[in-house]
Amino acid sequence: MHIFKIYEEADLLEYLGKYVAEKGIKTAWINIMGSLIDPVIGYYDTDKGEYTKKELPGFYELVNGTGNVSLKEGKPFIHLHVAVADREGNLYGGHLFGGKVFLVEALIIEVIGAEPLQREKVDGNLWVWMND
Amino acid sequence: MHIFKIYEEADLLEYLGKYVAEKGIKTAWINIMGSLIDPVIGYYDTDKGEYTKKELPGFYELVNGTGNVSLKEGKPFIHLHVAVADREGNLYGGHLFGGKVFLVEALIIEVIGAEPLQREKVDGNLWVWMND
Amino acid sequence: MHIFKIYEEADLLEYLGKYVAEKGIKTAWINIMGSLIDPVIGYYDTDKGEYTKKELPGFYELVNGTGNVSLKEGKPFIHLHVAVADREGNLYGGHLFGGKVFLVEALIIEVIGAEPLQREKVDGNLWVWMND
Repeated sequence: MHIFKIYEEADLLEYLGKYVAEKGIKTAWINIMGSLIDPVIGYYDTDKGEYTKKELPGFYELVNGTGNVSLKEGKPFIHLHVAVADREGNLYGGHLFGGKVFLVEALIIEVIGAEPLQREKVDGNLWVWMND
Repeated sequence: MHIFKIYEEADLLEYLGKYVAEKGIKTAWINIMGSLIDPVIGYYDTDKGEYTKKELPGFYELVNGTGNVSLKEGKPFIHLHVAVADREGNLYGGHLFGGKVFLVEALIIEVIGAEPLQREKVDGNLWVWMND
Repeated sequence: MHIFKIYEEADLLEYLGKYVAEKGIKTAWINIMGSLIDPVIGYYDTDKGEYTKKELPGFYELVNGTGNVSLKEGKPFIHLHVAVADREGNLYGGHLFGGKVFLVEALIIEVIGAEPLQREKVDGNLWVWMND
């Protein structure tokens, strides 16, 4: 179990990607909170088989991030959904595509001693675990 | 600890209910994310002692689901709250009453070696843990 | 790992603060759901270096609370972000400053056998973990 802060100029997903690569984490659950700048969220358009993206400019409280780590084409891949709050307390969210860290506090619960979870591409741009 | 996907035509709550029954899980914490179709959410009306339900038609990103498993009248019962995002990234949520799975990724942290948590009915339709 | 309900007249943060103090919990991750009355949420104003607060009067489903326990000036401190839903299923949220418990179900995952996480004050009113 890893509990740690991120408090430096970094893209959240890039930071988490490097963190798990360096630690050798292949399968894990992620739970985070804190604050983000300029998050970009996505909604999966099932008709088109691709994500519609939306930029949220400015500072947001990161109310919750829920996701996981698994292997995609052999490399650790971060899948993360977020709920973020604006100054008025309104919440927005979806699939996270990017966002700069202001201050993030993170829990990563690593799964050890089992075959790593692996994603394979199915319809559209969906990558689904195939060995769970 | 169970990390797994749900990727088949199923009601989320029914699927989770079957999963925990088959695995013999009686007490657990649940954390999920993914996407849902036609979720039905509820708000507890304290005056009436019952839930007001709202249907959310269409496809939603499941930004977060937080809940647990405990015994209700001797059977494993899923209590789950969800936050879901529409195409514009607006979030809605509450107590989950139903919703079809599109693709869900789930963490279930099982509690072993302790008396199972049990719900008992109190005022209205509240079922509260009585032995924690 | 602690799974328990809170079902009494209490401020959520005060209750959790007492709980962790009594159990000697110094470092932990928190995940909660349930319902809250009159929550007060905050948004960190980076220009002013302080939180803007907003009161949300009435009953709300507590869709998700994500946070942690660490030491601040030597005492266990609860840092908690929440997403709450109104009667219409609209979600609001941010940094939790207060709120009365209606019924809350909580998971606390304690970190044992490591140096407790400690916060130190940096710019503005940010208290950041310094030893992770």
